Amino acid sequence: MTIQESGAARPAGRPRSEKAEKAIIEATLDLIAEGMGVSELSIEAIASRAGVGKTTIYRRWSNKEDLVVDALSTLKAPLPPLSGTSVRDDLITLLEAMRTESGHQRGRCVMNIAMSEADRHPRLMERFVKRAIEPRRLALREVIERGVATGELRPDLDVAMGMAILSGTMMWHTKWGPAGDLPADLPERIVDAALAGMAP
Amino acid sequence: MTIQESGAARPAGRPRSEKAEKAIIEATLDLIAEGMGVSELSIEAIASRAGVGKTTIYRRWSNKEDLVVDALSTLKAPLPPLSGTSVRDDLITLLEAMRTESGHQRGRCVMNIAMSEADRHPRLMERFVKRAIEPRRLALREVIERGVATGELRPDLDVAMGMAILSGTMMWHTKWGPAGDLPADLPERIVDAALAGMAP
Repeated sequence: MTIQESGAARPAGRPRSEKAEKAIIEATLDLIAEGMGVSELSIEAIASRAGVGKTTIYRRWSNKEDLVVDALSTLKAPLPPLSGTSVRDDLITLLEAMRTESGHQRGRCVMNIAMSEADRHPRLMERFVKRAIEPRRLALREVIERGVATGELRPDLDVAMGMAILSGTMMWHTKWGPAGDLPADLPERIVDAALAGMAP
Repeated sequence: MTIQESGAARPAGRPRSEKAEKAIIEATLDLIAEGMGVSELSIEAIASRAGVGKTTIYRRWSNKEDLVVDALSTLKAPLPPLSGTSVRDDLITLLEAMRTESGHQRGRCVMNIAMSEADRHPRLMERFVKRAIEPRRLALREVIERGVATGELRPDLDVAMGMAILSGTMMWHTKWGPAGDLPADLPERIVDAALAGMAP
């Protein structure tokens, strides 16, 4: 289990440890983005790029998989706070988090590479999905279910399909949309288009 | 320009040429799928895997990019024939082609890898998109525009958003859906969910 997963407090008296940790995470993401991929990545290469010794890495992560799961998870924005009042507003907030992320060129590149290697590293990807993707899916599901309960959405709505429409339409734009930042009003436009079929 | 792009007839008197071409395409896709990726791929490696000489490859493709564009394009099913009567039926037919493709494990893997390298090979990806993706987008756009014209779809429909919803929701399932074949009724369910918001 990694430090982040355990949520344990950092040992006192290591003022440089956070800086080193950040350098190690950045080195990991840089090397993946530059085409080394997850398979070829090594603790040696990461240590060299980060300017730290291998033991500094092993003090924090017991193996490459733990480190990569942590590094990939930093690419996902934390779950945004939701108002809990308007379902439309909360859906826009959730899609806006996806839009912001997609504007980060390196992050997009690293995620594409990692996904392309998913078949070769199923356990790593499973852990990443569990840590970074599932909490968002759950948040999206809860907002949609709330909408069904309050009557803002159709009582017979297929919740899983509604999730796929919202996430998938946003994902389509991050994949096929114009390079650079996606338009600021995109989350709102997607939500309104999707709600046209989901409202009572 | 490659043979396939020019559409020129094959020279007579080369009975083995089609077999060699197929072996070369398969070798290219296998090597990409096994993790060589597009960048590291070489004509030498492809020739060796296909069991042909390098000149056999250069007789058909003048460079690696031409060959990779052809190889990737074989992963995309040809455009299915559309009835041209019911918009709903034609949309289901178009999504069914996406579903069938996604059931091919190697093809999915190769496409993921190629997309992850898109930034490093922009011209190659641009040619691939133009050849294999744009005809489908055009077909989808035409069906939706026909629906608007006939009144099967809302007169004020945002056609581009409708395309993104249909393709994106299907794409979401190919990316995050359960491993193995996607359910046979998925295209119909997606189309009906999307049409709920697109019908007049």
